[in-house]
Amino acid sequence: MKELLSQVNSPEDIKGFNYEQLENLAQEIRDEIIINLSETGGHLASSLGVVELTLALHTVLDSPQDKIVWDVGHQSYAHKMITGRKEEFKTLRQLDGLSGFPKRSESEHDHLNVGHSSTSISAALGMASARDLQGQDQTIAAVIGDGALTAGMSFEALNHAGHSGKDLLVVLNDNEMSISENVGAMSNYLSKIRSNPYLHQVEKDVGKILNKIPAFGNQITKTAARLKNSLKFLVIPGILFEEMGFTYLGPIDGHNVKATIETIENAKNIEGPVLLHTITTKGKGYKIAEDNPSKYHGVSPFNIRTGKKKKTRDKPTYTNIYSQQLTELAKEDEGIVAISAAMEKVVGDFKDEFPDRFYDVGIAEQHAVTFASGLALQGMKPFVTIYSTFLQRAYDQLVHDVCLQKAPVKLALDRAGIVGKDGETHQGVMDFSYLRHMPNMTVMAPKDENELKAMVKTAAEYDEGPIAFRYPRGEIIGVEEEGRVDTLEIGTAELLREGKDGLILAVGSMVPRALQAAQELADAGIDLTIVNSRFVKPLDEELITKLVKEHDYLFTAEEHLLQGGFGSAVAELIVDNNLDINVKRIALPDKFIEHGSQDDLLARYGLDVDGIKKQVKAVISNQ
Amino acid sequence: MKELLSQVNSPEDIKGFNYEQLENLAQEIRDEIIINLSETGGHLASSLGVVELTLALHTVLDSPQDKIVWDVGHQSYAHKMITGRKEEFKTLRQLDGLSGFPKRSESEHDHLNVGHSSTSISAALGMASARDLQGQDQTIAAVIGDGALTAGMSFEALNHAGHSGKDLLVVLNDNEMSISENVGAMSNYLSKIRSNPYLHQVEKDVGKILNKIPAFGNQITKTAARLKNSLKFLVIPGILFEEMGFTYLGPIDGHNVKATIETIENAKNIEGPVLLHTITTKGKGYKIAEDNPSKYHGVSPFNIRTGKKKKTRDKPTYTNIYSQQLTELAKEDEGIVAISAAMEKVVGDFKDEFPDRFYDVGIAEQHAVTFASGLALQGMKPFVTIYSTFLQRAYDQLVHDVCLQKAPVKLALDRAGIVGKDGETHQGVMDFSYLRHMPNMTVMAPKDENELKAMVKTAAEYDEGPIAFRYPRGEIIGVEEEGRVDTLEIGTAELLREGKDGLILAVGSMVPRALQAAQELADAGIDLTIVNSRFVKPLDEELITKLVKEHDYLFTAEEHLLQGGFGSAVAELIVDNNLDINVKRIALPDKFIEHGSQDDLLARYGLDVDGIKKQVKAVISNQ
Repeated sequence: MKELLSQVNSPEDIKGFNYEQLENLAQEIRDEIIINLSETGGHLASSLGVVELTLALHTVLDSPQDKIVWDVGHQSYAHKMITGRKEEFKTLRQLDGLSGFPKRSESEHDHLNVGHSSTSISAALGMASARDLQGQDQTIAAVIGDGALTAGMSFEALNHAGHSGKDLLVVLNDNEMSISENVGAMSNYLSKIRSNPYLHQVEKDVGKILNKIPAFGNQITKTAARLKNSLKFLVIPGILFEEMGFTYLGPIDGHNVKATIETIENAKNIEGPVLLHTITTKGKGYKIAEDNPSKYHGVSPFNIRTGKKKKTRDKPTYTNIYSQQLTELAKEDEGIVAISAAMEKVVGDFKDEFPDRFYDVGIAEQHAVTFASGLALQGMKPFVTIYSTFLQRAYDQLVHDVCLQKAPVKLALDRAGIVGKDGETHQGVMDFSYLRHMPNMTVMAPKDENELKAMVKTAAEYDEGPIAFRYPRGEIIGVEEEGRVDTLEIGTAELLREGKDGLILAVGSMVPRALQAAQELADAGIDLTIVNSRFVKPLDEELITKLVKEHDYLFTAEEHLLQGGFGSAVAELIVDNNLDINVKRIALPDKFIEHGSQDDLLARYGLDVDGIKKQVKAVISNQ
Repeated sequence: MKELLSQVNSPEDIKGFNYEQLENLAQEIRDEIIINLSETGGHLASSLGVVELTLALHTVLDSPQDKIVWDVGHQSYAHKMITGRKEEFKTLRQLDGLSGFPKRSESEHDHLNVGHSSTSISAALGMASARDLQGQDQTIAAVIGDGALTAGMSFEALNHAGHSGKDLLVVLNDNEMSISENVGAMSNYLSKIRSNPYLHQVEKDVGKILNKIPAFGNQITKTAARLKNSLKFLVIPGILFEEMGFTYLGPIDGHNVKATIETIENAKNIEGPVLLHTITTKGKGYKIAEDNPSKYHGVSPFNIRTGKKKKTRDKPTYTNIYSQQLTELAKEDEGIVAISAAMEKVVGDFKDEFPDRFYDVGIAEQHAVTFASGLALQGMKPFVTIYSTFLQRAYDQLVHDVCLQKAPVKLALDRAGIVGKDGETHQGVMDFSYLRHMPNMTVMAPKDENELKAMVKTAAEYDEGPIAFRYPRGEIIGVEEEGRVDTLEIGTAELLREGKDGLILAVGSMVPRALQAAQELADAGIDLTIVNSRFVKPLDEELITKLVKEHDYLFTAEEHLLQGGFGSAVAELIVDNNLDINVKRIALPDKFIEHGSQDDLLARYGLDVDGIKKQVKAVISNQ
């Protein structure tokens, strides 16, 4: 452990440090982050970008009485290290280790569990309102990136905060990036501020001019007064925020510890909401990451000297297969357009192949979906590609702007099911539930990469309404490639194996596992029927009903929560048709699923091959 | 029918009218709206406010090739009348009559089904993008109120539109109102513009000053240049929109037909996105509504001369009971605070009694929920009161910011179930489904007003996590008031009637209907057990399991969609426990439920007493 960091067990311990010591401590923390993440992986670039800012905040504020609310939370590693978690830092994102995000159960210095973007100002304003009602006097600070500011929710919160006049410190951590490069008018606006650093200097000169204006004569006195009022438009770069009721401070260099501390102290003494604009560099202090912050936003274990991954993938990912197939189809179908929300990588090379047919709307899932509806209603074939967990942001837009219109929007839900180390906030385990009850929606999940291709094609050709398909994070199965990609008939399942002892209706990633389990159980004398369900909505009622009648035991298998999902749809089918069968639903329990590797979590919750085997045996042998 | 209106069967027919004729036509349309709505009820004030604007848009644009996208859509009556629907206008909001909102199946002039706020700019930008890809050349216009602009989704769309540079006309219909009075920084900003009408006049004067500036000497030439650039800050009131990449036009008087037509013509010829700021008066032309636009936003049939309702309510509404109970509890519990999203009426007098403990955040459901979480995490007891359908906007915030934190936020879902004449976009028939699969959530529905009070109290005292309850639109049952309000034990159902022939598990509004059906069926020799389920999550598994084992027939009854709701939860329970019973789930089918009176719709879908009786008989007699 480093010399200064070894002395820091809580934020109290840094309060005596002078600027030089803080700068050295920042360096030590940075080294620790790089060394640790080279082993564990994690959010490298964003955390390196805010080390000085974190130390400055903890120097001026008294955490946990004063509260720092981290937006998204992928930048909270320095915060974790100086709030008593430096020893556990090497367990970051591992099963039962430290979370990669702030987590209330981990520390009294974490005030909000996060992972999704743009929630911090709302939550902090709520905390500030509670503080005022309770007659207390803490400082409440939200630290939010410029990317997160593009989400409408941030605007709603700024709108309310500016109006409320409450004491609230919003630290804008401006690194000119979301995960991808930033887009949108707000981003352009911030760029303008950054490129006009001389504005402060101008103030005095303008004052001189203004003083001479009355000399122009009485007839324009009103104009002069107006001109004077407009001074702030000239000298305050953050006029947008000022117009919303905030006092704007900045921009300042967020890597300058002294300036940052002094400005936070200043901000603390200003009444009402303050927006402190800090400029930081994503990946700061690790040249390789600074040069390619998007690539080093989230990393797997890497070689520090070269920046290269320690373990390269053996196989392509589902994201690769999806985006290749989409790009392929788009070559022959001019109607296909692609939309992402601040993550252009989810559609691979599509952007480069078809720059005019690709839209990155920024962190703005709500807009992404309704924008797609507008495209679809005018005859285009929009593929909205968003992680399963982030599409939750657009629930109402899916209902109101897509399903209600029967708009043929195509929804590609990447990172569905267990996503692994990002944990609770990122698991894509509610999508069947939230999509299935929407009228006019079709929901699919492929058993492997070949079927994913077929679903992309099916979605492209389906024009009767919205259609969604979800696929896992990470590497493909590696099945033999089929030469030809056919479309699927809507609502048809696939019978993969016939047996007499029980029936497994599996969906998506669970299909190959169920098949494997069936093959292994055959040796134990249990002979199973396996169905690749493919469609969660509509179900293949005919095939399922027929098979249920032929079996005594039914298992449903999905990488999804129990409530309301695929197994729930099957349960509805069974009771609605008064079918008589012994049922066991294999799925995730009714809780938020923690972080850990995908394999560890699948094993823990009985969704791996062994888990399926055990659950099947327990039911069938028990009878 | 009026003289001019009788000549108008499509927008083509108004193109030959001169300004005077258009003004007269506006008056005729206004009269028709008032006369018709005095019989049918509907959105009066908002529709009266945009009559001239509607005529101006249809005069300049060529609908349906050019597209007008109405935000929310409650202001679309004049649009409906001149696009071939004037004859059917008297069927407005009636079963199988005209919808109160734009609806694609009604007319080629309606491009988006709406009802929820703030979707128009996103959809219009999607349509504009399709237009450009297809090499076409229509004008796409979104008409959006200042209230709808407070929702983050609008900001996301402006952000993208401003950046995209696409030709798009956004007409800001600024009437200084949401349904309630507007709140927030954006609203303050628009007020400032409205109160500075002289700004345009100033432009020339400022020009004169600017010309003299270089005389001040070389050393400040840079400053002078900067000052010159900043001219726009002085003369353009809509600097906020300009900063976002829009050309700002206005503000203009939206009731001046000539000015509005000329400005729209001007806007049509400007490249890139244009924001046209029109000032209108909600309720324009009907003094009673102008004086109280909030009250006359949505009306039931009324006397034109007095403005009074034709039929006053016999009984209070569920909203009355809820808000009284909340206000009552708040007197003794300082922790209770209330939050609404642009509809302060949903909490009755709470605002007047406790102005410091009430927050109207504007049309900003996402922020409302996360803001509440911040309050709850600091020890307060926030009651978030939002219509069931609008809470859909905060789905992800409920998952990520409330349930994940186990934050004791209390969710009061008003207008749950069938809401009647507002139709498809407003039915609150998905809440069980979207809430039930969220870990840590508790979900209740009261059988009557007494139980609603008990649920308010239960929610206030429950501190282990979030808790939601949903109650119907409209009048209470009118049961005898209980003197004392007790809390409910979480997850307990209530056995109301015991019979031997079948079991109905009913929830919420369906409980009294099921009980009534049971009493009537008793005469027909069918003897039913009736359970008031009360909790959708957690279910009273013990009681349900016991009763299921004692019966041959099970019915579930809910005012909610079939998929994923209460009956789905019961289906899960039955298959998970391998219970053997003949099941019929009584609920709404998998479709969007149209408009009509609540009674008509309940009858149509078999959810009234007769419907329950029929469905029970069909099953039991059939066997």
